[in-house]
Amino acid sequence: MSKKLTKREDDYSRWYNELVVKADLAENSSVRGCMVIKPYGYAIWEKMQAQLDKMFKETGHQNAYFPLFVPKSLFEAEEKNAEGFAKECAVVTHYRLKNDENNPGKLVVDEKAKLEEELIVRPTSEAIIWNTYKNWIQSYRDLPILINQWANVVRWEMRTRLFLRTAEFLWQEGHTAHSTKDEAMKEAELMNNIYADFAQNFMGIPVIKGLKSESERFAGAEETFCIEALMQDGKALQAGTSHFLGQNFAKAFDVKFANKDGKLDYVWATSWGVSTRLMGALIMTHSDDNGLVLPPKLAPIQVVIIPIYKSEDQLNQISKKIDPIIDKLKSKNISVLYDKRDTHKPGFKFNEHEIKGVPIRIVIGPKDLENSTLEIFRRDNMKKEIIELENVFEKIDFLMEDIQSNIFNNAYKFTNKNIRIANTYEEFKSIIKNQGGFVSAHWDGSSETEEKIKKETKATIRCIPIDSKKEEGFCVVSNKPSPQRVLFAKAY
Amino acid sequence: MSKKLTKREDDYSRWYNELVVKADLAENSSVRGCMVIKPYGYAIWEKMQAQLDKMFKETGHQNAYFPLFVPKSLFEAEEKNAEGFAKECAVVTHYRLKNDENNPGKLVVDEKAKLEEELIVRPTSEAIIWNTYKNWIQSYRDLPILINQWANVVRWEMRTRLFLRTAEFLWQEGHTAHSTKDEAMKEAELMNNIYADFAQNFMGIPVIKGLKSESERFAGAEETFCIEALMQDGKALQAGTSHFLGQNFAKAFDVKFANKDGKLDYVWATSWGVSTRLMGALIMTHSDDNGLVLPPKLAPIQVVIIPIYKSEDQLNQISKKIDPIIDKLKSKNISVLYDKRDTHKPGFKFNEHEIKGVPIRIVIGPKDLENSTLEIFRRDNMKKEIIELENVFEKIDFLMEDIQSNIFNNAYKFTNKNIRIANTYEEFKSIIKNQGGFVSAHWDGSSETEEKIKKETKATIRCIPIDSKKEEGFCVVSNKPSPQRVLFAKAY
Repeated sequence: MSKKLTKREDDYSRWYNELVVKADLAENSSVRGCMVIKPYGYAIWEKMQAQLDKMFKETGHQNAYFPLFVPKSLFEAEEKNAEGFAKECAVVTHYRLKNDENNPGKLVVDEKAKLEEELIVRPTSEAIIWNTYKNWIQSYRDLPILINQWANVVRWEMRTRLFLRTAEFLWQEGHTAHSTKDEAMKEAELMNNIYADFAQNFMGIPVIKGLKSESERFAGAEETFCIEALMQDGKALQAGTSHFLGQNFAKAFDVKFANKDGKLDYVWATSWGVSTRLMGALIMTHSDDNGLVLPPKLAPIQVVIIPIYKSEDQLNQISKKIDPIIDKLKSKNISVLYDKRDTHKPGFKFNEHEIKGVPIRIVIGPKDLENSTLEIFRRDNMKKEIIELENVFEKIDFLMEDIQSNIFNNAYKFTNKNIRIANTYEEFKSIIKNQGGFVSAHWDGSSETEEKIKKETKATIRCIPIDSKKEEGFCVVSNKPSPQRVLFAKAY
Repeated sequence: MSKKLTKREDDYSRWYNELVVKADLAENSSVRGCMVIKPYGYAIWEKMQAQLDKMFKETGHQNAYFPLFVPKSLFEAEEKNAEGFAKECAVVTHYRLKNDENNPGKLVVDEKAKLEEELIVRPTSEAIIWNTYKNWIQSYRDLPILINQWANVVRWEMRTRLFLRTAEFLWQEGHTAHSTKDEAMKEAELMNNIYADFAQNFMGIPVIKGLKSESERFAGAEETFCIEALMQDGKALQAGTSHFLGQNFAKAFDVKFANKDGKLDYVWATSWGVSTRLMGALIMTHSDDNGLVLPPKLAPIQVVIIPIYKSEDQLNQISKKIDPIIDKLKSKNISVLYDKRDTHKPGFKFNEHEIKGVPIRIVIGPKDLENSTLEIFRRDNMKKEIIELENVFEKIDFLMEDIQSNIFNNAYKFTNKNIRIANTYEEFKSIIKNQGGFVSAHWDGSSETEEKIKKETKATIRCIPIDSKKEEGFCVVSNKPSPQRVLFAKAY
């Protein structure tokens, strides 16, 4: 494995693309825009899934599974949603192939097997799910419905990048149904808070919770909550969204319930999702010119142990010391790899585990055997030290927590340092052009101003922050009154 | 919830269809042949997934994810495989919809967005995966590759049934690459053994391990291992298959490796899978006229506790006794539901949990409070008894194991009773017609005989058993010599 990774300051985008491949996370497939998620990348995604799934279940949600395909007539029922996704839909039109009469061994689409109604490969599942909920809901007693689905979705993207923007991606999509507006709104905000909790406390990614402006909302939503994170290159990344859908889907699919007084009303809805895009956020928040940096809580291998030996006998002596350590680490649910491969030199192994972001590396050689010591290295700050063998568990426990909090703190400082206040449009443009990051500025609330700023600076409103103080002012563009600052940035 | 389920002896097929819906496992969707897996059904599937995933990982396999779509040119590369699936392929031909000019608010396929090459929605992933492995394999050092994927696949079926045969289904597909024929063959058999272990020890389903005859093999395989189970109506169900693919896919995709001597050879392959079809096997092995019967190891709710009370005060007294029991059961990882809903009467709850197959039901009322007793009911044999409150944990531990082994033993006896020996074709036909189940008969090994039997009796060769004794004889149809008996049955 060649360690030579493009440096971030030379070409951030290239660094990212190289790292995804060199760290064995994913690669492009022969299907345009679709990726192969390799075992090491998938193992990180599995850890993310397991934690999110736990958090969803703890808040009363259950998993279910709905069809991959959406008949066109259902897809188009909620007009805004349909319009929002129509241009990126993969469409199934036939259900059979046949032998190509002109090319033996080749197949062609059998024109006799044309579907009466085309099927859309789901870009999101509101339509198929609300068409199902219609049959599940009669009265308030059937509510709330709190369902999540882990699934693949397809959105035909013209320019794709591994994890960040792929034609097919993996995600979870929650779809809930409620008897009151208030309950649905609370659900949407709750799930956004869960996403924020997960991003910060497991992925180590500081996020800003906010609301989307109307033009940035999910197609079909009345309010979109989001978490926004700042990548090392100063561009923002939307890491999760949670939508209050009002009664739009209930109206489109005629889903009514009888309330306690027997009166019929449309059901209130939310939907919320995070995807394999989070892998991109994880990579671009923590990693460095040496490769991936992973938070211990999501690292598939938390500790790698590399023996330095010249003879089989030396290896055996080392293993005698190391085996009980491995057993104890495993009993503490710490995942450990004892990399005693004799096909690769220690230097190669160091590079490989560095580029793959293994949080803790232990090296033990003949001298350590004599002294009852070992070398311990932390990937986040690349520092190593010699410790007494007997202190190894204490040290690992400390590092597991310290690396987790250290990488969060570094990212937190970076994010905060890169939220800049602009009080004039000149300041705004200068920050976006020269410094990047978030610009906190007053905005008059109009789509026109938003559009003008986007056109002139490429920055969009990332969110209207929820937790920031509400300071009144005047729009940097129109000078009209503004109730609070909003965050702008160029974004992934 | 109406308990009235069609009786099995009246109409087995109808009983099955009703049970799947009434037990809240799944339902048909508005997409032809695709099902919605409801939360209760999905929770059982999740338990199956978790256990299988553990068993795969313990045997060195890792998960990954490959694209949903297969370009037609890759799909057709391995000819037998392509031919086997060509007639049931959903085909994506376009990547965009546009507004229908003649129907405001409606969408039509945008003919300008026609794909240059059609994409097949994967019916199985050998093609896309071997096209990927090609780039991963250069030398014997890159082998073996032991990868599994959890995914959805689509096979366009004309007649569909919930879980048993659906256009889209969920499954896992393992795809491994090896440097020797022997290693690949061992892998294929190992995975079949894991499936058998899982079916018997977790699902409580006795299975017969065997090999498929040539005509029943997976398209593209050189040998197919399988596990076959017998359903209550005397029809067999193929519960899992594991394929030795020889070098077929390596040759189709030109995947070669350098062995230790530097010589190039094609890579050896296996693939193996089980699907949501196992849900059908689970239902049809254990359930009865009262509803579902679940093995405790896969039951989403293992214990349900129903309080009998007339006043809030009585409920509080019961809860005071029950809450610590629930805490302790949870700490022992037993999933328990305390069903104290005041919207439903006890009788309704009894029916609901019976039809949903909850293994253990506890009922506690005012009289039990006085006597420090409770009523405990086991779903498998519908027996109830009064026990001392203090014995509840011991009793539950016993029942969890006893129900698990009891339902397996019942199914095992049923299966064995329904394997009948036929020494003449008359006997064979009579058994198939009048008794069903497996027929153990000599067969001359030819496809012609197999085809004749299928045409005349609808019975197919389910497998050539691996573990049965090898008794020589003469084919019941042709009277030609046969090295061992094989198992025939009508099958799902």
